[in-house]
Order: sequence, then structure tokens, then C-alpha cells
Amino acid sequence: MNFGRHISGQFNVELESIRTHVLTMGGLVEQQLSFALQALNKEDIDLARKVVKDDHKVNVMEMSIDEACTRIIAKRQPTAKDLRLIMAIIKTISDLERIGDVATKIAYVAIETPSSKQRKYHVSLETLCRLAIDMLHQALDAFARMDVESAAQVHKMDDKIDAECKAVIEQLTKLMMEYPKNIPSMLQIMQSAHAIERVGDRCQNICEYIVYFVIGKDVRHLEDDDLGRALNDI
Amino acid sequence: MNFGRHISGQFNVELESIRTHVLTMGGLVEQQLSFALQALNKEDIDLARKVVKDDHKVNVMEMSIDEACTRIIAKRQPTAKDLRLIMAIIKTISDLERIGDVATKIAYVAIETPSSKQRKYHVSLETLCRLAIDMLHQALDAFARMDVESAAQVHKMDDKIDAECKAVIEQLTKLMMEYPKNIPSMLQIMQSAHAIERVGDRCQNICEYIVYFVIGKDVRHLEDDDLGRALNDI
Repeated sequence: MNFGRHISGQFNVELESIRTHVLTMGGLVEQQLSFALQALNKEDIDLARKVVKDDHKVNVMEMSIDEACTRIIAKRQPTAKDLRLIMAIIKTISDLERIGDVATKIAYVAIETPSSKQRKYHVSLETLCRLAIDMLHQALDAFARMDVESAAQVHKMDDKIDAECKAVIEQLTKLMMEYPKNIPSMLQIMQSAHAIERVGDRCQNICEYIVYFVIGKDVRHLEDDDLGRALNDI
Repeated sequence: MNFGRHISGQFNVELESIRTHVLTMGGLVEQQLSFALQALNKEDIDLARKVVKDDHKVNVMEMSIDEACTRIIAKRQPTAKDLRLIMAIIKTISDLERIGDVATKIAYVAIETPSSKQRKYHVSLETLCRLAIDMLHQALDAFARMDVESAAQVHKMDDKIDAECKAVIEQLTKLMMEYPKNIPSMLQIMQSAHAIERVGDRCQNICEYIVYFVIGKDVRHLEDDDLGRALNDI
């Protein structure tokens, strides 16, 4: 019995350590995204360069957590909820790493496209940026508490991001037609908008992994209505 | 001993069944991408609608393989190379599902943007499409044989896709500046080009999982030169 408790205790310590690493990685990715958007909006080239430089930290964290997950499976042979947690973590860090890539992409746009062009034509990505950072922050918060109700709420935030992204794209399209000379820089800003939109999708994925972990149900690929029903059934 | 052999035999049967399902899913995704690009290039709306309709088949396959992988880990407690295979499969199907999403996105563009617009302005996505389908086909082939040398070769094919995508984007940008009235449909085609470019990145991921499975080394996020060296060291 003692031996059993010892093994199980050690396993919990290891699992808790992995979970802490995921949260640290989440914090770093949130910071990268926030810095990248700040660099884009405030024309801060140094900050943009820092984001590009720090992307490897996100990558290293992903690989190290991935390795820790594989090791814990091989060594501790978890089942049921413990195994679901590890699966949810493996998928979450992949989405976090890709949000990190979005931050880098935006940082490159900040380096290449002066935001004075945006200001000149009254295109603002600020609302879109704020929505994306807010959604990521709340998704990570739901993950930290493994709170399925928060996850369901955060999941819905993507609608606002999609609507704002659509509005920005329409505005940029009109501006391109009006000032064709500025098309190349407008296209860069449009690519950033699309990239930020994808952050919302990735946050939705993280919310789905939380639901999978907590209730053991794979709710990916459900239509909004069906997802709502699935979550009400909890 | 017999019992051990029996368990191990049964495990191999289960693992082989999962591997077969991955290849079936890969075949379906390849077909979806191929149909979507054909629909875009030949203005075949019916085919595009079929691609949209069939996307759920890809999603169902991803979820079912994912579940089989979790079940086999819980039941058979694999270690070392067997566990690496399952990890490689879990990641591969996630990339395949997202290539499926790209196919659906392109199918929507085919429905919304008549390709006569492309032809009128001599923009062709055909070379880009051919390169992406070819890379996916060869990545799946390398996966089927778990051939690390092929994986290394396929990995390099992304350079050609990136170069072709860049050329298409430059061509489209010039056309937009010349004919601003057509910007909305040109933007749709540009989004398809970017989506196809991401297929190349996803195929690179699959190649990296093959290397991880075969030699047990995580070669993600390496620069091309370092990756070349890592593969030469095998």
C-alpha cells in the first residue's frame, strides 16, 4: 500500500510539474502575441525583433513538454483521466506553439510594414488584437483551472473575433480598391488579420481539449448548436 | 511465454489496424485536396460541393483514430518504439485533418470565385496545386513505409512550394494594382495560394514525425542545415 502510494505520489508530482510547464509556456506565448501586436500597432521594431528572437524559446518548451509526456506514459502507464490529461496537454502545446508562430509572423509584418500606413488609412487592428489576446488569456485560465464551464464560454468568444476580422478585411479591401498603390502594405496587414483570426481557432481547440479531459468526450468538429447541447448535458 | 506472445501478437494486430486507418485517412485527404484543386481550376462547382460535404468524413476518421490510440496506450501500455509510433500517429492525423480543412477552404473559393477570372488575368494555381498534391502523396508514401530517407527528401520539397507561392502572390499583387476592380476575387485566389502553401508545411511536419518514430529524435524546429546534418548522422 505504501509502495503504491509512493508511486502514485511521485506520479502526481511529475504530472503537476508538466502542467506547470504548460502554463509557463502559455504565459510566454501570450506575452509573445501581446508584444507582437504592440510592435505592430506602435511601430516598435526593437520589440518586433525581440519576438522573432524569442520564438525558439516557445519551440524548445513544446519539445521538452512533449518529451516529458511521452516519458511519463512509458514510465507510469497512466490510464483514464490521467491519460486524458496527458493527451490534452500534448495537443494544447501544439496549438500554443502555433500561436507562437502567429506572433512571429505578425512581428515580421511589424518590421516590414510601418504602421503609419495603417494610421494614414484609418485601418486599426487594435480591437482584433485585444479580442485575440483576451481569448487566449481566458483559454489559458480555463486550462489552469480545468474549468469546463469557462471553456464553453471562451469557446464562444471566437464569433466576435471572426466578425471583427471580417470587418477589417472588408475595410482593407475597400482601401485597396481606392488606393491601389498601397496594395502591397495593405496585403501585409491583411495577412496579420487572418493570422490573428486563426489564434481564435487555436483557442477554441484548447477549450475543446479541456472538455475532453474533464468529461471524457471529444467535442471537436461539432456545430455550435451541438456543442452547446453537449456542454449542457454535462 | 505463449501468453506473452499472444498479448504481443494481439497488440501488433491492433497497432497495424490503426496504421491502416491512418493510411486510409491520408488517401481520403489526398483525394479531398486533389478534388478541391480540380474544382478550382476547372470551375466545377458540383465537385467543390462534394469536397465540402465530405469534410466530416475526415473529421470522423481523425477522432476515431485518436480514440483508438488513447485506448491502445491505456490497454497495452506500449513503450519505446511502439509508443513513438502512436505519438507520431496522433500528430500526423492532426496535420492530415488540417490539410482536409485547407481542401474545404479551397472548395469554398471554387464555389464563390469563378476561375474564368483567373484565366482572364493569366493567374494559374495549377503548378502550385500539383506541387502540393505531389508532396502530400510522397509524404504519405514515406509514412506508409516509415522510410526516413524519403521523409528527408520530401521535407525539402517545401522550398519549391514556397517559391511558387511567392511567385503567384507577386503576380496577383501586380494584377490587383493594375485592375483594382477585381481585387475581391483576386484576394480569394490569394487566400487559396496561402492555404496551399500551408499544406507544404503540414507535409514537413509529417516527415518530421517519421524521423522521430524511426530514429527517436525530435527534429522539429531545426534550421534546414541542422536538419540536413541530423539526418546525415543517422
